[in-house]
Amino acid sequence: MFPTTLSFPQVGPVLCFSHGMGIPSVGILLHEVIKLMYHAKCKDPIFFRLGTCGGIGIEGGNLVISESAVDGLMQPFLELPVLGKMQRRPAVLDKKLANELKQLRYEDDPFTATVGKTMCTYDFYEGQGRLDGAFCDYTETDKLNFLKQVHAQNVVNMEMESLCFAALCHHAGIKGAVVCVTLLNRLHGDQVDTPKETLNKWQEYPQVLVARYIKKQLGLPINIPQRNHPQV
Amino acid sequence: MFPTTLSFPQVGPVLCFSHGMGIPSVGILLHEVIKLMYHAKCKDPIFFRLGTCGGIGIEGGNLVISESAVDGLMQPFLELPVLGKMQRRPAVLDKKLANELKQLRYEDDPFTATVGKTMCTYDFYEGQGRLDGAFCDYTETDKLNFLKQVHAQNVVNMEMESLCFAALCHHAGIKGAVVCVTLLNRLHGDQVDTPKETLNKWQEYPQVLVARYIKKQLGLPINIPQRNHPQV
Repeated sequence: MFPTTLSFPQVGPVLCFSHGMGIPSVGILLHEVIKLMYHAKCKDPIFFRLGTCGGIGIEGGNLVISESAVDGLMQPFLELPVLGKMQRRPAVLDKKLANELKQLRYEDDPFTATVGKTMCTYDFYEGQGRLDGAFCDYTETDKLNFLKQVHAQNVVNMEMESLCFAALCHHAGIKGAVVCVTLLNRLHGDQVDTPKETLNKWQEYPQVLVARYIKKQLGLPINIPQRNHPQV
Repeated sequence: MFPTTLSFPQVGPVLCFSHGMGIPSVGILLHEVIKLMYHAKCKDPIFFRLGTCGGIGIEGGNLVISESAVDGLMQPFLELPVLGKMQRRPAVLDKKLANELKQLRYEDDPFTATVGKTMCTYDFYEGQGRLDGAFCDYTETDKLNFLKQVHAQNVVNMEMESLCFAALCHHAGIKGAVVCVTLLNRLHGDQVDTPKETLNKWQEYPQVLVARYIKKQLGLPINIPQRNHPQV
């Protein structure tokens, strides 16, 4: 039995799923999708996680393609207790795939595309150094010092799933990429105050880029403009 | 801005929210609800998490009221990197509240109610020692040895949110209780094969018990039978 009731659209050879927030949710989905790939006898699938993130040194509305993932202590692996013993799985992503995706950004796109490290956290507020959660035992200066320190180590965004996505794809021998749109530059604040309509537009950017990759892989013309969908 | 769009029914002084699977999801919700309680000037709220779990030594369809939570290494605290340093928060629940809830189980209820330790994991498959995930580097015997070993230390169920729930409630000075219904006895297997209709009935049991507590607190008669809702 699948605890997530897997229901998903399939378009040609492309499957599309939603996951919930955080490592446990994406982990459940990945276990189930990897099993599905196996039973369906899929050869060399490529997994993409598309999502949103906080940029570090990158303004809102731009793309980050993760070259690898680190946890909140800058450790490049997923730690998971299994039968009472800590397992560590390298959070490795496919660098070639990341660079191929970056190459598919066009000069006239309304977004930039940066390849860099992604910090993946277990918490949205204190875990990402926000000052606006229920608790906060540090100052704005402490936060900025931390963000600048990780930025100096090539961390360009923060989100909550990439560590597990990278670790499980790598462990399964599956090529994986994480493409997220930044909702804000965390060096300038914690609150997202961009209008909903703009956020909806931004959230399509990862799909625009990954759709070009898929079309290219399938030998389809990639310059056909995408249909505009009415925003809900 | 709340990343979870908080929308919830309020019935008298009772608020009810859904959270997603896992610590990150319940953590986001708790930060936001604790802030909400503060701004709404609520005095001494009591938080309940109601959910499902795997029983350890307890058959499906019975209640577990957590006396405290431990992680997959039997550590009784939530570990959370904050600004690059590991924070540890005791995963303490209110023992008096747990025992009061247990007392509200009636002789003729179709479920038992056990107070014991809850193991909270970051993963549903390997994290809970299941053999049916995408990966598994251990045997049925290894799994059973682990489950029996934690059971001997008074762990009676496993789920994926209690550690964070207990830690954040305790840190905020809020009384909290976790009441989960077992979907199976993990000492007998990994797969839930109970019919959906029965599972739906079981999932109401935590609500039945907690509703009695709420009615008692509000001075309402607690023996009025609950309305039957059609199952979707």
